[in-house]
Amino acid sequence: MKVTPRKLGGIVELLPAEQIEFNRLLDIIRHTYEKYDFAPIDTPDLELTEVLLAKGGGETEQEVYSFTREGSKTNLTLRYDLTVPLARYVAEHESDLTFPFRRYHIGKVHRAERPQKGRFREFYQCDIDVIGSNSPIIDAEFPAVISEIFEQFNFGDFTIHINNRLILNGFFEGIGLKEVSRDVLRTIDKIEKLSHEDFAQQLQTIGLTDEQVAKVIDFTNISGDNDTILDKLKHLDIPSADYQNGVEKLSALIQALRSMQVSEKRFVVDLRIARGLDYYTGTVYETTLNDYPELGSVCSGGRYDDLASHYTKTQLPGVGISIGLTRLFSKLREIPGVINATTQSPASAIILPIDEAQNNYGLSIAATLRDAGIPVQFYSEVEAFKKKLRYADKMGYAHVLIAGQNEQDAKVVSVKNMTSGETQTISIDELVSFLS
Amino acid sequence: MKVTPRKLGGIVELLPAEQIEFNRLLDIIRHTYEKYDFAPIDTPDLELTEVLLAKGGGETEQEVYSFTREGSKTNLTLRYDLTVPLARYVAEHESDLTFPFRRYHIGKVHRAERPQKGRFREFYQCDIDVIGSNSPIIDAEFPAVISEIFEQFNFGDFTIHINNRLILNGFFEGIGLKEVSRDVLRTIDKIEKLSHEDFAQQLQTIGLTDEQVAKVIDFTNISGDNDTILDKLKHLDIPSADYQNGVEKLSALIQALRSMQVSEKRFVVDLRIARGLDYYTGTVYETTLNDYPELGSVCSGGRYDDLASHYTKTQLPGVGISIGLTRLFSKLREIPGVINATTQSPASAIILPIDEAQNNYGLSIAATLRDAGIPVQFYSEVEAFKKKLRYADKMGYAHVLIAGQNEQDAKVVSVKNMTSGETQTISIDELVSFLS
Repeated sequence: MKVTPRKLGGIVELLPAEQIEFNRLLDIIRHTYEKYDFAPIDTPDLELTEVLLAKGGGETEQEVYSFTREGSKTNLTLRYDLTVPLARYVAEHESDLTFPFRRYHIGKVHRAERPQKGRFREFYQCDIDVIGSNSPIIDAEFPAVISEIFEQFNFGDFTIHINNRLILNGFFEGIGLKEVSRDVLRTIDKIEKLSHEDFAQQLQTIGLTDEQVAKVIDFTNISGDNDTILDKLKHLDIPSADYQNGVEKLSALIQALRSMQVSEKRFVVDLRIARGLDYYTGTVYETTLNDYPELGSVCSGGRYDDLASHYTKTQLPGVGISIGLTRLFSKLREIPGVINATTQSPASAIILPIDEAQNNYGLSIAATLRDAGIPVQFYSEVEAFKKKLRYADKMGYAHVLIAGQNEQDAKVVSVKNMTSGETQTISIDELVSFLS
Repeated sequence: MKVTPRKLGGIVELLPAEQIEFNRLLDIIRHTYEKYDFAPIDTPDLELTEVLLAKGGGETEQEVYSFTREGSKTNLTLRYDLTVPLARYVAEHESDLTFPFRRYHIGKVHRAERPQKGRFREFYQCDIDVIGSNSPIIDAEFPAVISEIFEQFNFGDFTIHINNRLILNGFFEGIGLKEVSRDVLRTIDKIEKLSHEDFAQQLQTIGLTDEQVAKVIDFTNISGDNDTILDKLKHLDIPSADYQNGVEKLSALIQALRSMQVSEKRFVVDLRIARGLDYYTGTVYETTLNDYPELGSVCSGGRYDDLASHYTKTQLPGVGISIGLTRLFSKLREIPGVINATTQSPASAIILPIDEAQNNYGLSIAATLRDAGIPVQFYSEVEAFKKKLRYADKMGYAHVLIAGQNEQDAKVVSVKNMTSGETQTISIDELVSFLS
């Protein structure tokens, strides 16, 4: 009795060609995170539910994989993000870590989602956070690192939207809306979907006076280049220390981005982004792909006051950002021409012996190439040469190195360029530099 | 109310310095696998129990994390190895894959072990397999790739033990022990722990004649260098096609290893290794660290006849090997001086501004270095310079780049070598080549 091989729904599983491309993107993320000196950590997939869900919150609990194994009393939960495990890690190892603590974490998380398009039960998160720093320059590192990553991704132009919750909160406080700031934020969050009139009306429904509505509309309409927006913000008469503080921090962030030579076209002050209601307390980020606005934000984050309040008395302010690579990749692979997955193998060359008599010769060539750091496959199946060539073609090798008796006698290989179809003879001595 | 931050037992969680070293080893494995042209795959952590445990087997089921989530009817299991998911992957994607299919897979697996020393509930496996090939040259690639990996690991000398189950099975058949071959194998498996007399006696208990006992003892005592052993095997008069076939394949494997220029001291024909009773049908491998024999085999595998018989009618022969890096690392970290974890950060340099006035200067230096591919941190905390130096020292940077007003005016940095304590002045133009 055969069992039909299949998977749980809501999971992305790639064939090798796409997996190679996915891993290339993961590598870009990893190397760029390391270039900015974020250190790797790795936390368990399985955590104690009592610890992981210490914060509670009904919505989270419905979305996670929690279970008690038969015969066990311990309830376990698969991690559903990399932030709560970071909080647990930092609190557990507090005395062994050096602060500010800069970590990156790339790993899978699990959510018990009802499967639907764009929702995944298992997906990669690629997070960086700096814990224990209040420096606004730290806040600038995130757009800088993200900018470098998306430039390497080469998915066209992108925009990193930056705001500061202190500005929003201070503004609301300054115009007498502190008590209803959550409702106002919620309305601003929908601004792109509302007509002018509906936006104003919804603000009135919350209880804003005509004057307050006008001020909110003026505020959300502040536009121009980054310096213009900052200038307008500085000259707005808002009697709130938070507001002034927020504008100063945002200015410092923008200045630091320029010092790091991040291209001005990559980042924009955007007063309309807030990133939810509770978690973030300072800088917030969203990233959009200019050619694919329908994807929404593909990389978001921000600054928070207290990472691990459920685990430790130490107040740990932090700032972080996250790339959801599975979601991004799975959306882009549906758009023709974006994801380039043409080869099924890491090597760009394969050695094909004409027959078994050249096995040892071919293996020694493989050893020479690998010794020089060049990935290569030696093909040892005993079959017609035509079939060997078909394998090489299907796999997508750029070069086929043919080793027959003549080649062996002359210490050469015939190199077939699989794009042009041309063949040339290359000596073993020259092969490394030819393929490098 | 604070919850004590803690984890499930039987899990290894590393601090950044050790994590960096662990990841360096993972990278060595990955890059070497790719150099031999194994393509990456990634399968879900969570599989449908009905599919993953299709083979059944009570022992496996007791050791795995299986569960049905509240409100769901689907029983799920966390993968407990990377072989069954490979079988499912190959069977599910059979028509989309190109055979021979060469894949590597590095990922975590989960086992519901009772926690004890050296047993883990969550650990990394690093597997390579070639599916759909019967070539003995393929069998030679595994010791070649493993040899290259362990040379880079630099844990001292190591030995890859190689045998072929056909030789063992053929030998037993040839001397009339086919029916009791499992019992004989089980006894040979314990040979190192038994005295000469006890070994002979246990064989007699199984029912071997004195002549058969003598033959088994002679066989297990075959020794010498690889050529001597192969020569002795060839001249043994064993009337079994399997035996002759096995000896030929083992000879071809050894010959191919030499063609690939694998050092002779890295591999040894070892007639005593069998790797369990059922799964492997041809070549088998075990790897031992010469300086740490107490670790047992740190990398094992072999050839099997049929990978995915539970999922597909297609017979898929294969050969594979696996490195259990979590186990290896966690044992070696207990031996002083083996695991070298001296730095908490990926970068070997940090830029310390004397005060805030040099922030922009320092950030531009950071950008220049990162542009040249050099990882670096810019330290932006506002605190006494002494405290900044203390942070750099604790983190383990090799070089501290000090940027004060004098340095900024002269377009230089003062570079402090943290090992020697010496400081020298380097111009920004020369900094990249100095740190490269």
